Amino acid sequence: MLVRVNTIRLALAQVNPTVGDIAGNLNLCFESVAKASAAGAQLVLLPEMVITGYPIDDLALRPSFQKASGEAIQELATRLASENLGHLVVVVGYLRGTDNDDAEKLGVPRGAPMNSAAVIHQGKILGHYNKHHLPNYGVFDEFRHFVSGDESLIIRAFDTDIALAICEDLWQDGGPVARVKDSGASLLLVLNGSPYERNKDDVRLELVRKRAAQANVTLAYVNMVGGQDDLVFDGDSIVVSAQGQILARAKQFETELLVLDIEVRPAGTATLLSTGEPVLVVNQKSDSPKAALTGKIREQLSDYEELYNALVLSLRDYVQKNGFKSVLFGLSGGIDSALVAAIACDAIGAKNVYAISMPSKYSSEHSKSDAQDLASRTGLNLREIAIEPMVAAFLAELKLSGLAEENLQARVRGMTLMGISNQEGHLVLATGNKSELAVGYSTIYGDAVGGFAPIMDVPKVDVWALAKWRNENALANGTTPPIPESSITKPPSAELRPGQKDSDSLPDYEVLDAILREYIEFDRSLAEIVAQGFPEDVVQKTLQLTDRAEYKRRQYPPGPKVSGKAFGRDRRLPMTSKWRES
Amino acid sequence: MLVRVNTIRLALAQVNPTVGDIAGNLNLCFESVAKASAAGAQLVLLPEMVITGYPIDDLALRPSFQKASGEAIQELATRLASENLGHLVVVVGYLRGTDNDDAEKLGVPRGAPMNSAAVIHQGKILGHYNKHHLPNYGVFDEFRHFVSGDESLIIRAFDTDIALAICEDLWQDGGPVARVKDSGASLLLVLNGSPYERNKDDVRLELVRKRAAQANVTLAYVNMVGGQDDLVFDGDSIVVSAQGQILARAKQFETELLVLDIEVRPAGTATLLSTGEPVLVVNQKSDSPKAALTGKIREQLSDYEELYNALVLSLRDYVQKNGFKSVLFGLSGGIDSALVAAIACDAIGAKNVYAISMPSKYSSEHSKSDAQDLASRTGLNLREIAIEPMVAAFLAELKLSGLAEENLQARVRGMTLMGISNQEGHLVLATGNKSELAVGYSTIYGDAVGGFAPIMDVPKVDVWALAKWRNENALANGTTPPIPESSITKPPSAELRPGQKDSDSLPDYEVLDAILREYIEFDRSLAEIVAQGFPEDVVQKTLQLTDRAEYKRRQYPPGPKVSGKAFGRDRRLPMTSKWRES
Repeated sequence: MLVRVNTIRLALAQVNPTVGDIAGNLNLCFESVAKASAAGAQLVLLPEMVITGYPIDDLALRPSFQKASGEAIQELATRLASENLGHLVVVVGYLRGTDNDDAEKLGVPRGAPMNSAAVIHQGKILGHYNKHHLPNYGVFDEFRHFVSGDESLIIRAFDTDIALAICEDLWQDGGPVARVKDSGASLLLVLNGSPYERNKDDVRLELVRKRAAQANVTLAYVNMVGGQDDLVFDGDSIVVSAQGQILARAKQFETELLVLDIEVRPAGTATLLSTGEPVLVVNQKSDSPKAALTGKIREQLSDYEELYNALVLSLRDYVQKNGFKSVLFGLSGGIDSALVAAIACDAIGAKNVYAISMPSKYSSEHSKSDAQDLASRTGLNLREIAIEPMVAAFLAELKLSGLAEENLQARVRGMTLMGISNQEGHLVLATGNKSELAVGYSTIYGDAVGGFAPIMDVPKVDVWALAKWRNENALANGTTPPIPESSITKPPSAELRPGQKDSDSLPDYEVLDAILREYIEFDRSLAEIVAQGFPEDVVQKTLQLTDRAEYKRRQYPPGPKVSGKAFGRDRRLPMTSKWRES
Repeated sequence: MLVRVNTIRLALAQVNPTVGDIAGNLNLCFESVAKASAAGAQLVLLPEMVITGYPIDDLALRPSFQKASGEAIQELATRLASENLGHLVVVVGYLRGTDNDDAEKLGVPRGAPMNSAAVIHQGKILGHYNKHHLPNYGVFDEFRHFVSGDESLIIRAFDTDIALAICEDLWQDGGPVARVKDSGASLLLVLNGSPYERNKDDVRLELVRKRAAQANVTLAYVNMVGGQDDLVFDGDSIVVSAQGQILARAKQFETELLVLDIEVRPAGTATLLSTGEPVLVVNQKSDSPKAALTGKIREQLSDYEELYNALVLSLRDYVQKNGFKSVLFGLSGGIDSALVAAIACDAIGAKNVYAISMPSKYSSEHSKSDAQDLASRTGLNLREIAIEPMVAAFLAELKLSGLAEENLQARVRGMTLMGISNQEGHLVLATGNKSELAVGYSTIYGDAVGGFAPIMDVPKVDVWALAKWRNENALANGTTPPIPESSITKPPSAELRPGQKDSDSLPDYEVLDAILREYIEFDRSLAEIVAQGFPEDVVQKTLQLTDRAEYKRRQYPPGPKVSGKAFGRDRRLPMTSKWRES
């Protein structure tokens, strides 16, 4: 049997929008379409909510913001047409206020916000698809921000039936994706704002393959890239055939325009009209044949490379999108600040990275020399400020001892950083890791000061692993390993009293991190964790420390989620709580 | 026509549970029932989620916590029976994990959490009602934490049909409350965890009256009382007749057991069985007649008295529920810290209140004398610590000037408070108001330090009004007004540079607060606010300052929501955002 096939040249624009920068995001979209057109594309797919950036939280509820988003989509359509790009079919995610028709049909107030995709052609918005499944778990609050759509949309263009879905629609069984097979569409376009977490790329690929097979379609999945507060989007846009073959895959953590030819079934094989789904007929035929274009298939990064890149991108975007030019932090010679230094240098260039070595009388000689070693390896700007005079001034007035004196040292360092930041305009970074943040092993308003906390979701064992990976990667590339070996190998210490080591008050980090993972990521009870072979007293202490540190975490700076459950909006607990696992 | 009526003696237990203190909350419930029984009550109603405390955030998702809640309800039933209280019908709110039946019926995983009410009688849990309408706006995230119930429950006891609802069920048109009339029930019990905000008591009374009339029932509304992090529950439990008559009303901001006789229609008039609603038949007849007991009707507080009491209760409970004995803050002589001082003295007693006067070279003489005056009026513990030596030590090392130097002074004060707190164990209070927090007129890690911020949701104009009200109230009661007149009348100043006044950089607070209210509470655009007659440049500046201070608010301590929209979980915005109203 001879099967007739159509060829469509499809472009996926993996772009990096900025929340609230509607004019800038509109430009990104326009330029992507122009570039796609230059590459011969007929159909361009942009990410979820790309016009507004994502996630926008309660901006979704602000009428003036909704209006601006709606006007921007119109302007994009008009500008594309006026620049001779009107013949492309462009699908763009944006925030849409329901019109009277929608509002009546859905029983919601007029203007209720929707997470929507617009289909643009010849200067017009031809139709919309509104996200059906709103994620409302983990970091997502979409029931708060959007009303759900309940209709599918089939675009009949290039003599082919094309279905749409937005992000969570793909993850949920049933719903719009389940209807795609019945519609007979042969291409499914999925707009995404899917944040990175470790190993999610593998999960995502399997999901995309499964849905492509279920729906019997070529599936084109576009994701945004970039950092937004506590989330980082990894891109990893992908096109797979119904048979599960990867036809194209974009880079992770970089913007990219993927352009490729795909073969699809012609329209008319569809059982579509019998299902009553809305069909949007676009009077655009396929162009005359061109030389075939296959998609690029980028190689996936290794696990630590991926994680490291996530941290770098997240920091870079927080700095740049908030108008900073430089960062500042305390460089103790320990592994946490050394890793943050390496990330910062990779993110914005060593010449924009300012570090302060702030030794006290309890600091080892190593502290200073390791900091200097790191500075000379990376080229970052290092200065040394002794904290003794300020500590002495406080002690003379306040008579502090014990923990209060330890905290005082950390706070003098914090104030020193904030003073220099105010004077010189750098963004201060907090260098704490997830293990510390869990058990409260940090000083509020001390080492916890900062506008951003690049490794707050990285457990201590992975801090070491990332440092090693970064150094090995440097060697493999013939560059200087940024992190002094001694910072990696020496026993961790806060150096707030003579001879202090982390192991004086905490279990070994291998044990601590394993317990924390069970408790935080998997919500396991004390009994369940003990049953895995950990000593009961250690587990009990770890859980109690974690519960009691909730108030400190509430005031901690934001940093990127990279795990299955990060502190912050991913894990919401009361501060006032007498619940203790027993 | 002769209408037969039943009399039921009903008790509403307006109690103050603590989140996570399941054993303590169980005791509260038990003691309430025992006290109600001693007053002759037959039917006892306790608040929403009283066994766990409320709101519990992601504790709802923790299996070990669900299990503890379920076990506590069983234990309460057993204990009541063993203490000869089994004959009472007791309705109690708690966290319930769905059993297999529910899970299958609702299509949710087994163990999915429900916000539930248990009906306890003769040592057994006879049945459940699961909240239908889950609030998911403002401070509420109940779609994240609970699955919805979809069945009504009628309790047939004392020869009367009694319906149940939980909190939001009452606020939503349609749903379970709409079905009550058809059921023929003549009493509706509503369990609530309804947080205070200004004027909500009036709204609530009108709602209760409206629903009682719609459903043709006597409506008994019980609310919890007490502070929980950023929420404060005001009690204000109430019983109204179908005709809208107030039969009983509890005090605001205090625990109380309301006991009263109500007259209800006998069962059997109900069209109940035809509607297919589940009926729980409780074999408990009415007792033999007793002397009639009418309900107490407490007088409502005036607006400022109500607000002041909310702030006092919120602070007291944060202190006590978190195991603190005392509080500490900087007393500048200005109106904000003076009001916080008065609130703190009323909350936990002046002998537990520690204040530090921390003058600098820019402080007026008034600053010190007003602080001393307040201390002698209230009896709080005041000491003076000069910040000059510490400021000088930093300036010698860091060469700060301008804003960096202003911030330094605020941070030396913050560090001083934190040092004393660490040494002596007090909870530090941040004394900033809502107007400051909005426009970022505070120093992060400076005057913003603290574990709790009692007036963070009170605009500056209301800070003055509350101070005046508290002083007048003292005079009316023949006690000493706590706040020095001069703190109320002098022009506000941060005193961080010579002659500085708030009005140098901010509009008059009357104007500022009015603009902020339009922007924050009502989400109005710049154009809409200008159209109300405010100068465009002032509006634009106010909105920009507010947008830019988002990062500071993220690290601000929690404090009680008392307005229609507080900062914090009530208003969630990205930090990284280029959106500016124009």
